[in-house]
This record gives sequence, structure tokens and C-alpha cells, in this order.
Amino acid sequence: MKENKNQLLSPAEYIPHLAFDSVIFGFNGRELKILVLEYHNTGLFALPGGFVKHNETLDTAVKKGLEVRTGIKDVYLEQFHTFGGLSRFQPEIMKTILEANHISSVENEWMLKRFISVAYYALINFTDVKPTPDALADSIDWYAIDSLPKLMLDHQDIVNKALETLRENLDRKLIGMNLLPNKFTMKDLQLVYEAILGTKLERTAFQRKMLNKDILVRHEKLFSGGAHKAPYLYSFKS
Amino acid sequence: MKENKNQLLSPAEYIPHLAFDSVIFGFNGRELKILVLEYHNTGLFALPGGFVKHNETLDTAVKKGLEVRTGIKDVYLEQFHTFGGLSRFQPEIMKTILEANHISSVENEWMLKRFISVAYYALINFTDVKPTPDALADSIDWYAIDSLPKLMLDHQDIVNKALETLRENLDRKLIGMNLLPNKFTMKDLQLVYEAILGTKLERTAFQRKMLNKDILVRHEKLFSGGAHKAPYLYSFKS
Repeated sequence: MKENKNQLLSPAEYIPHLAFDSVIFGFNGRELKILVLEYHNTGLFALPGGFVKHNETLDTAVKKGLEVRTGIKDVYLEQFHTFGGLSRFQPEIMKTILEANHISSVENEWMLKRFISVAYYALINFTDVKPTPDALADSIDWYAIDSLPKLMLDHQDIVNKALETLRENLDRKLIGMNLLPNKFTMKDLQLVYEAILGTKLERTAFQRKMLNKDILVRHEKLFSGGAHKAPYLYSFKS
Repeated sequence: MKENKNQLLSPAEYIPHLAFDSVIFGFNGRELKILVLEYHNTGLFALPGGFVKHNETLDTAVKKGLEVRTGIKDVYLEQFHTFGGLSRFQPEIMKTILEANHISSVENEWMLKRFISVAYYALINFTDVKPTPDALADSIDWYAIDSLPKLMLDHQDIVNKALETLRENLDRKLIGMNLLPNKFTMKDLQLVYEAILGTKLERTAFQRKMLNKDILVRHEKLFSGGAHKAPYLYSFKS
């Protein structure tokens, strides 16, 4: 959406009625956040999303769209659900956003139709990236998952479903996601689980459960201070 | 699709470019099969699918569409992936199907466009239902997953992804799916796992793994013949 703002998107180029939204989870070792855009002069908060061109695959559109809207490149996005409810059809909301950006809602009438949205999520370290808002948005910021602003349309449902998906099979997802250093302590791993599950876990039970899963390799101790207190380092089995 | 065949679907009623496909897994306690349609006089085999009306939710369209195309009612369908590749755009295939059914591909030109398909799966006991083909199809039959006919478009990819999804978190899925009687033996459970995973499992390792998961309740023994051989019955913890 870096085109001239007044001829934002050419309707003929895009598949009508089809949108995507992305839930970008950010994690810094302790806290779980989500990336949210605020549209100019509207008070409307939204997930970064976009549309799909006739001549590009859905996955390509999502990857490119996220980069244009947030400035974030090369994120591994995973599709998790397609939202096709009728309550997400609220043309006045898109009209408000277009008008606040001085874009004709008559010429861009296709954007006021009902959209089905394919949703993707990613999990990245938010200290690695500095998101930048596109022309449609005032700001783009990380918000803690338990203190999100009120999101437009069904975007809170999309976040909830993304969180539910992320929490399922968390071991397998963490192995692929490079959120932890190659070697980490059991405490580091517990902090990831606690942030994503949104709950405190009991240390010895957590450790026992993880070791039983047979997904970790134990390495040397992490020598930092008194050697007798040094915790073991672990890595994921490949 | 029970409308008059020559005016199959009114283009104005349907969201353009949006389809759905369903992978209906059938299981009878031992074998895993999939429901496949064969289109009249085309040699084309396909998953049961359909389109979404402007005034209905995606989920409603899928549920109704499956019933119309297969005669199967009240199946719990779970969405698993949306397919948006460019290789699935092959207008000549849809044209062949329409013409074989004496339906004008000129009047139904919208059906020759690129479609994004939202895919759903279900797992049912195939001895419980008798599928019936709709007007577009010659036949609808259960095929063993390892001997499917060549499927049109990307339908084999859709089946593969459905199978992958089903195999993940299988315990949790089985608990909800009523494929087993309320009480079952460890052997019954092993047969379900073997059919869905497509591999033989070692009896004692399987039993140990299942008992370690803490998802089963042990009940009385199944008395059939010699009591000393009677296996225990189990149910899933609620």
C-alpha cells in the first residue's frame, strides 16, 4: 500500500471478497505481545491485513502484504484459519478508514463488500524488528496480549483463535521458531511456556514433563557464578 | 445442486472465486477411507465441494453443500487449510465437467475463474452412512487412502494436508469424534491409531504410551471367553 494514497488499490487487480489478516506474536524471552495498527483519525485498531492479486498465490500475497504494511521482512507465517462469518461484513467501517485517508469510497466500492479473511500467524522476537506503519495507518505497535485495544470487526476473535492454535502442540512449534538461543536453560524454556500459555507453571513439574517428552538434549552447565548453582543447558533434538 | 441442471447455480448468488472442499474420512474400526465423487463421462475424480452464497456464512455453506453433494447429514466438519495456489486454476477442467452435464459454460463463466478453496475434514464411521451422488456426479464411493484414484486439480494435496492434520494431536481428536464405542479395549484403540497413522504399532509400547498420557479411565474387564484372557475396557477421560 505504498501506491499513491488516492488511487490506493486497483479493483481489477484484486480478487474480490478475499482478504487476509496476520497475527504477529512478538516475544522477548518473557513477554508475549501482538502487532496492532491504528488507522488515521478513526480510533480504529486492526491486525495488519491486505488483499490478494489475481496473478499471485495466497501465500505470496500474505508475505508481501505483511512487509508493505509493517516493514517486517522474511517472517515465517503459518496459516491457521479462514474467517467467513456474516458479522465481519460492516461496510461503514471500511468507509470510515478510506475517508479518513481521503480515498474515494465510491471508486473503491469493492472494498466495502463482504470479505472472507484467511488468517496467518507468526511468532518472532520483537526486539529484533522495528515495525513501521504504512500510509493508511498512524501507528503500529506491540501490545501485550492481555491489554489489547478494542479491535475492529472480528479481529479479537482472530487473535483468540491464533492464540489457541499457538498453544496447541507448543513443543513442536517452538522447535521450528528460533525464539530461544540454540542452548537454553530449563528456566528460559519455562518462561516461554508461561508467556504463551498465560499462566505460571510449577518448576519441578514443568521440568519433569519436558524431560519426559524426549525432545531435549542436555549439554554442559551454564557457568556464571557459583558453579554449584549452575543450571544445565539444553537444546532441542533435531 | 439439486436445482435444474441446466441453470445449475445463479452466479449472482455466489461469492466469486471462493470454493470449499471436504475430505470425509471414513473409518470402520479397522480401515481408513475417503469419500470421492466421479463426474459424469469425464473420468474426473474429486473431493465433494461447492460454493458460498453472499448471504450465508462459510461454515453454513460447507455443511449444506456436503449434504447436497453426498446425502450425508449432520457431520462435524473441521476447517483445516485454505488452498490459494495458482496451479489450481485450470478452467478447462471445470468446462469439461459442465459440458459433460450439458450445462452452458458460457452462462456459467464465473465457474471457470480462479478459485481459492477452504478445506474441511470430518471423520465418521463409514458403516453408519450411505452416500448418494448429486446430479453432477456418476458415483460417490469410499476409497482406501492408499488406493485413491487420480484426483483432479490439487485435490490430492488437499487429502495429504488433511491426513497430516488428522494425525497431529490424534488423542484429542479421537476424544471428540465418537469413532469408538464409549468403552473400548486397548486393542480397539490401537487399531484406530494404526489405520490413521498408516503404520503398525508395537503392542506393549503403544499401551505404555497411552497409559502415560493420562487420557484413559480403566473400567471392568470385557468378559467374553476365558476370564483370564479378558482385556480391560477403557474410556476417554471427559
